Amino acid sequence: MSTPSFTKYLSDTAKHVDRALDGFLPKEKIAPTTIHKAMRYSVFAGGKRLRPILCLAAAEACGGEIERAMPAACAVEVLHTYSLVHDDLPCMDDDDLRRGRPTCHKVFGDGMAVLCGDALLTEAFLILAQTMQTPRYRMDAFIKELALTSGSRHLIGGQVMDLEGEGKSLTKAQLILIHKAKTAALLTTSLRLGAMAVNATPAKIEALTTFGQSLGLAFQIIDDILDVTQSTEVLGKTAGKDANVAKATYPAIVGLEKSRKEAAVLTQKAMHSIAVFGKKGEHLHQLADFLLGREY
Amino acid sequence: MSTPSFTKYLSDTAKHVDRALDGFLPKEKIAPTTIHKAMRYSVFAGGKRLRPILCLAAAEACGGEIERAMPAACAVEVLHTYSLVHDDLPCMDDDDLRRGRPTCHKVFGDGMAVLCGDALLTEAFLILAQTMQTPRYRMDAFIKELALTSGSRHLIGGQVMDLEGEGKSLTKAQLILIHKAKTAALLTTSLRLGAMAVNATPAKIEALTTFGQSLGLAFQIIDDILDVTQSTEVLGKTAGKDANVAKATYPAIVGLEKSRKEAAVLTQKAMHSIAVFGKKGEHLHQLADFLLGREY
Repeated sequence: MSTPSFTKYLSDTAKHVDRALDGFLPKEKIAPTTIHKAMRYSVFAGGKRLRPILCLAAAEACGGEIERAMPAACAVEVLHTYSLVHDDLPCMDDDDLRRGRPTCHKVFGDGMAVLCGDALLTEAFLILAQTMQTPRYRMDAFIKELALTSGSRHLIGGQVMDLEGEGKSLTKAQLILIHKAKTAALLTTSLRLGAMAVNATPAKIEALTTFGQSLGLAFQIIDDILDVTQSTEVLGKTAGKDANVAKATYPAIVGLEKSRKEAAVLTQKAMHSIAVFGKKGEHLHQLADFLLGREY
Repeated sequence: MSTPSFTKYLSDTAKHVDRALDGFLPKEKIAPTTIHKAMRYSVFAGGKRLRPILCLAAAEACGGEIERAMPAACAVEVLHTYSLVHDDLPCMDDDDLRRGRPTCHKVFGDGMAVLCGDALLTEAFLILAQTMQTPRYRMDAFIKELALTSGSRHLIGGQVMDLEGEGKSLTKAQLILIHKAKTAALLTTSLRLGAMAVNATPAKIEALTTFGQSLGLAFQIIDDILDVTQSTEVLGKTAGKDANVAKATYPAIVGLEKSRKEAAVLTQKAMHSIAVFGKKGEHLHQLADFLLGREY
């Protein structure tokens, strides 16, 4: 359901983010070069830049200058990339293909992929620390926001539950918990950091939090649906992977049609929560609409 | 060469750090419990707490209240622990024994050990963000100091060079570069963060930097010597490991006696650099003395 102007917004913003990422990340020629090549290989692998776009769109919705949110936008993308590099390792999800290219460990080896993920995670905090603090939000608030979300209580915790849940039959409630921790938490933090960077009021941050939680769960349900319904070629990653390793998915638990309906209801809830931003929240609205309608 | 009162200082300070670490780290009962058990298993494995003790001793040398440096002290220890957990992985150094106990991946599995290291790295920044900023050093300076040192340019960079150097013959200059990146950088940052937390002058930070770089290299040379001369039982980790995997060591390149002499010269240089602290630098002096004389 995306209009030509929205498609252009997505592509322009992704390019803008890519230029900023290029500036933040260490150059390939810096020694030791292998790790910097691996970091750039993983970051510049053609991702959708969804998290940074959400971050910048949140800053825009709050009436702020989006450049102020750029370090946060790049930090969440670099952090997201680290989580993919480590998730793809043979001792984790063991995936050979990501975004249509061989995964980091297939190209650079397992040991280097562990180090590459570690370096990206560390770099995310270095980049975030380049945010200008605001009257309401000091630097420690930014660091705590990202560290809490990406730590053992949320993002990594979700991966642990995922790993421990393989081959077991999970309840819907358990799966929702995993999806919230693995996906919704970082999407929400992307929005919150963008708003914090432009000194948004607590009420606006709260609205974005509700938006992120609903949208994040919808996003992951759709990911589950696509894993079942789409081909490897279209996805750019191994399709049917979750079912193959007996991983619980939303469609497997509640069925395909009910999954689609729940995703739509969640997206509506998300959209309702950002009505408060009016015209300024237009890109957030379009993003939610786009994510529900996506086919890859 | 350690006196009974210095031995008591080491043991009391380590206990003090352990209590603080216990307060900072997520409790085991927090879900998902496995990751929090793995984190605590790795952190409370009986380490010497050398980095936090250096951090607190630096704060003391600068005439500050050591409690102010406690978040930084715990952050560097948690970060150091993550680096050990990942270094021990089968795809890295592949070690089964650490501090006299089975390594994290032997107990919790490879995937969980990757996640445990990730969680500890993330937690280190969360803990550091609890430091009170000072007039001279704002929060971003603390975060940048730790992130730069532990990132791809230093700590992780050193591990990359180490991994790539296995089985190759390294020059002394190359080995020094690895030792500086892998060991001296984090020891130096431990000292600097402790001093920053008590608002030390740039001149004092500079003196501590020289101290840390010399001491750090001496420390790693001694580690190489012990790996050659001591038994697995005494070390609490697999002895002769470096030689077994054809890893370059200081004694292998310059000989055992020359290694000992160079470590002693470096320690003297380190001690000279902290003369400026007078009586307040006594613990730093004793630490340097202790590290040169250690046999395990």
